[in-house]
Amino acid sequence: MKEPNYTLLCDYYELTMGNGYFEAGMADQITYFDIFFRQVPDHGGFAIAAGLEQAIEYIENLHFSEEDIAFLRNKGIFSEEFLSYLKHFQFSGDVWAVPEGTPIFPGEPILTVRAPAIEAQLLETFLLLTLNHQSLIATKANRIVRAANGRVVLEFGSRRAQGPDGAVLGARAAYIAGCAGTACTLTDQLYGVPAGGTMAHAWIQMFDDEYTAFKTYCELYPDNATLLVDTYNVLKSGIPNAIRAFREVLLPKGITKCGIRLDSGDITYLSKKARKMLDEAGFPQCQIVASNSLDEMIIRDILMQGAQVDLFGVGERLITSKSDPVFGGVYKLAAVENEQGEIIPKIKLSENVSKITNPHFKKVYRLFENQTGKAFADLICVHDEAVDDTQPIELFDPDYTWKRKTFTDFTAKELLVPVFSHGERVYPKFSTEEIKRYCAEQLDLLWDEVKRFENPHNYYVDLSQKLWDIKHQLLNEKKN
Amino acid sequence: MKEPNYTLLCDYYELTMGNGYFEAGMADQITYFDIFFRQVPDHGGFAIAAGLEQAIEYIENLHFSEEDIAFLRNKGIFSEEFLSYLKHFQFSGDVWAVPEGTPIFPGEPILTVRAPAIEAQLLETFLLLTLNHQSLIATKANRIVRAANGRVVLEFGSRRAQGPDGAVLGARAAYIAGCAGTACTLTDQLYGVPAGGTMAHAWIQMFDDEYTAFKTYCELYPDNATLLVDTYNVLKSGIPNAIRAFREVLLPKGITKCGIRLDSGDITYLSKKARKMLDEAGFPQCQIVASNSLDEMIIRDILMQGAQVDLFGVGERLITSKSDPVFGGVYKLAAVENEQGEIIPKIKLSENVSKITNPHFKKVYRLFENQTGKAFADLICVHDEAVDDTQPIELFDPDYTWKRKTFTDFTAKELLVPVFSHGERVYPKFSTEEIKRYCAEQLDLLWDEVKRFENPHNYYVDLSQKLWDIKHQLLNEKKN
Repeated sequence: MKEPNYTLLCDYYELTMGNGYFEAGMADQITYFDIFFRQVPDHGGFAIAAGLEQAIEYIENLHFSEEDIAFLRNKGIFSEEFLSYLKHFQFSGDVWAVPEGTPIFPGEPILTVRAPAIEAQLLETFLLLTLNHQSLIATKANRIVRAANGRVVLEFGSRRAQGPDGAVLGARAAYIAGCAGTACTLTDQLYGVPAGGTMAHAWIQMFDDEYTAFKTYCELYPDNATLLVDTYNVLKSGIPNAIRAFREVLLPKGITKCGIRLDSGDITYLSKKARKMLDEAGFPQCQIVASNSLDEMIIRDILMQGAQVDLFGVGERLITSKSDPVFGGVYKLAAVENEQGEIIPKIKLSENVSKITNPHFKKVYRLFENQTGKAFADLICVHDEAVDDTQPIELFDPDYTWKRKTFTDFTAKELLVPVFSHGERVYPKFSTEEIKRYCAEQLDLLWDEVKRFENPHNYYVDLSQKLWDIKHQLLNEKKN
Repeated sequence: MKEPNYTLLCDYYELTMGNGYFEAGMADQITYFDIFFRQVPDHGGFAIAAGLEQAIEYIENLHFSEEDIAFLRNKGIFSEEFLSYLKHFQFSGDVWAVPEGTPIFPGEPILTVRAPAIEAQLLETFLLLTLNHQSLIATKANRIVRAANGRVVLEFGSRRAQGPDGAVLGARAAYIAGCAGTACTLTDQLYGVPAGGTMAHAWIQMFDDEYTAFKTYCELYPDNATLLVDTYNVLKSGIPNAIRAFREVLLPKGITKCGIRLDSGDITYLSKKARKMLDEAGFPQCQIVASNSLDEMIIRDILMQGAQVDLFGVGERLITSKSDPVFGGVYKLAAVENEQGEIIPKIKLSENVSKITNPHFKKVYRLFENQTGKAFADLICVHDEAVDDTQPIELFDPDYTWKRKTFTDFTAKELLVPVFSHGERVYPKFSTEEIKRYCAEQLDLLWDEVKRFENPHNYYVDLSQKLWDIKHQLLNEKKN
C-alpha cells in the first residue's frame, strides 16, 4: 500500500504557531521537545513502547503538496512567505527514542526531538497519536498474554477497532507485545503478523445441518479444522457433531490434531465438559479455543477455576484497550538554544502538579543489577552527564528527597537511541518479528513485582541531582 | 489522498470460508446478512449511525491486486480456481442501510447485504469496523454536545486517538453528531469539517515572558486571538497578561472579540474568576474556552455549578469514547435463497439469549406520531410486509407478548434505503454538512425522554406478528 500523506494530520494550531514563529523571526530557533506519559493504563506497573516505525515513516514522508498549500492559502491567515517555506519543508532535525518493545515508565522521555521550532511543533500530533495508540495496545496485549500464563493469545478484534488503522496497527502492536497472531489478513500482508482464524456462525447456518457444515470444513481443511460449536447447543449438538466429523473425516487420514471454538456461554463450565467429551472420544489432542469479550481479568479468573482452554481469541477488549482506552503521552517543550548555541532549559508549570514538566535536553539511563540482570531504576540526567557504573550511585526520590539509597554492582544502559540525525534516518528498520523478540527479552529484565495487575511495585524513575537542581531553580523563578 | 486498498482488511476466516463455499459449490448461493447492535454505549437511550460513506467507498474499491493474490497463494491453502475467481472479484450484490446521522436502536438491522455467499462474507470485518467506529464516536459526541447545552463543543482529540483513522474519521463522526469543528487539519481538508485551535504551551515558553508571547500572538492574529493562560499561573499571571495584550494590541484596532483558554486546574472556579476579571477589564465579549479531560459528565457538573465557559474543547474522552470504547455491531446471516429463489430464513441460537438473531430478509419502519411528529417505535417486518399507516397498528413486546398497545394517527417511514443495487452504488454522496444537518433534524424527532443520560426511556423496537411467528417457529425447530 502507498504511504498516505499525513502531513496535514496535525492540530491546526501547529500551523498557526508555525506561521507565528515564521513571522516573528523565530523560524530557525532550535527547540527540544520530549514525549513522555504520566500514568500507566489500568494502574499497571509499566507500559511497552510501540509505534516508532510508523512515526519514522511519517517524518520521512513529511511534505506539503500543492493541494495542501492551496488548502492552507484558502484559510486566509497564512503569509505567502510562510506558504513558500512550507513548499520546501522537510524535516532537518534530530530525534532520539526508545526502541519499540521497550518497557517504559511514567515521567521519562521516550522520544526527544531537536529541531527548528516550526518543524518540531508540526510533529506533535502525529508522533503522539502513533506512539500513544500502539503503546496502549502493546501494553494491554501484554497484560492479556500474562494472564493467559503460557497459553496462546490471538488478536481477534478488527471488527470493533476504532477505524482501519486501529485494526491493522493495533494487531501489529499486540503481536509485538506477545500475541501469537491475528485474525487481520492485512496485518499479515503488511507486517508479517501470522493471520489465522476458524469460521463464523454463518458457515454453519449455510448448511442444512451442523454436522454437514463441520464435515465439509474438515474435508476442506483437514490440517486446520477448528470447528465453532456454539451455533445451536454446545454440549448437545456442537461437540457431538464435531467429534463425529473428526472421526469420519480426520481419523481415516490419520489426523488427530484438531480444535473446537467456544464463543458464548460459560467458558469455564463448557470447556471442562468439552475437554471430557473430547478426551473420552479419543481426541485428547483437540485444542479448545475460547473467545467472547475476554480480557486479562476474565482469563485469569476462568483459569483459576480450571477452565480447559488452550488458546484465547481476544477481540474488542484488547483492540480498544477497553478498560482504559487512552494512553496519555504528551509532547512538551524542554529547552531552546540561544544564538550562541547554548541550551536554555524550559519548564511548564501547572495548576495540576502532575502536569509540571522536567526541563532541559535530557538522557535516560536504565540501571540493571549485575547479579540478576534485572532493571531496578531509570535515571533521567542532563544531556551532558554520564553515569559511571563502576562507581556506587545514590538515587533519591524526586518528591521526597530525604528518601535516598545507594546502589553498587550495576550496569547502566542508555535508553534513548538516535533515530534521525540532521534529518536523515539513522535507525535500522527492524522486522516485526525482531521487535517482538526484543520486547520479550526486555520484559524478562523486569522483576515480577512490576508485572502484577494489582498494586504493582512502583519502579523508580529518578532525576539526577543536576537535573533536579535545574528544575527546582526554574520552579522557584517562575512561581512568583 | 488516494484510497487505500482495504480488500485484505478482512478476518482471515472470511477467505477460508470463501474458499470453502467455492470448493463446496456454494459460491453463487445468495445470502442475506444484517448488521445490528445489541446495546447502546454508556447505557444511553439511542445511538447515531455513522460511517456509511466509508463503507460504500470500501465496497466500490474492492479488488484483489496481483500482490494480494500472490500473498494468498503463498498461504498454501487456497485453490487456484478460487484465486482466479478472486482476480475478477467485484461486489455484485445489493445493500440497504440507514442513512448516516439516523438515530438507531438495539436489535434492528442498520445495514443489510444481499449477495453471493463469498462476497457477502468478505464484507463482514470492514463494514463492521467502519460503522462500529464512527457510530461509537457520533453517539459519544452527541452526548457531550447535549451536556454542553447550547455551548460550542470542538473535537480536540487527535493526539489520543487510536491510530490516524481514529483521529481523522473520528473527527468526521463527531462533527456529524453536533460538534462545531475539530483541531484536526486533515479532517478539514478531506471532509470539510472546520479546523481551528489556539496555541500550545510551547508558544508561551518560547518567549522570554508570557506577556510577550500573548502580545506577539495578538499582533499576528488580531481577529482570532485566543490565549492559553495556564502556563504559569492563571489568575496571577495568565489573565492579567492576556488583558494587557488585548488592551494594547486589540483595542487600538477596535477589536473586542477575543478569547482565553483554561487547560488545567478547577475549571469552575477559574472560569468564574476569569469571567469577573475580563468583564471588569472591559472584555465582556472575551470568550472562555475550557479543555482538559472533559466529557459529558464533567461538563454537566461544572455547568450546574455555574462555570463560565463558552466553548469546550474535548479530547481523549470523545475521540476514544473513553467511558465505553466499543460499539458492538455484529454481522449475522439472516437468510439464504434456495435454487427456486425462495428466501429461507436462518437463525443463530446461543447460550446467551441476547445473542439469538432475528431471522429473514427484513425491513424496518419508524413510526411517528402525527400530532407531535415524534418517533415512538420502530417495527421490524418481513421484507414483503407493508405497514399501512392509515389503519391502527397493534405493537407488542417481543419478550413479554402480553404487553400490547394499539396506536392510531401515525406515519410510518422505512428506515433502510437502497445503497447498492446489483453491485452499483445507487445512494447519493452527501456532504458532511448535509449529513450533520440531517442528523440534527432526526434527533429533533426523538422525545427528550430517550435523550436522558440516566435511565433513558426504552424506545420500542418490536417485531411484526409475522416475523415473530417465523422466529419462534425456527427457535422451536432448532432447540431440540
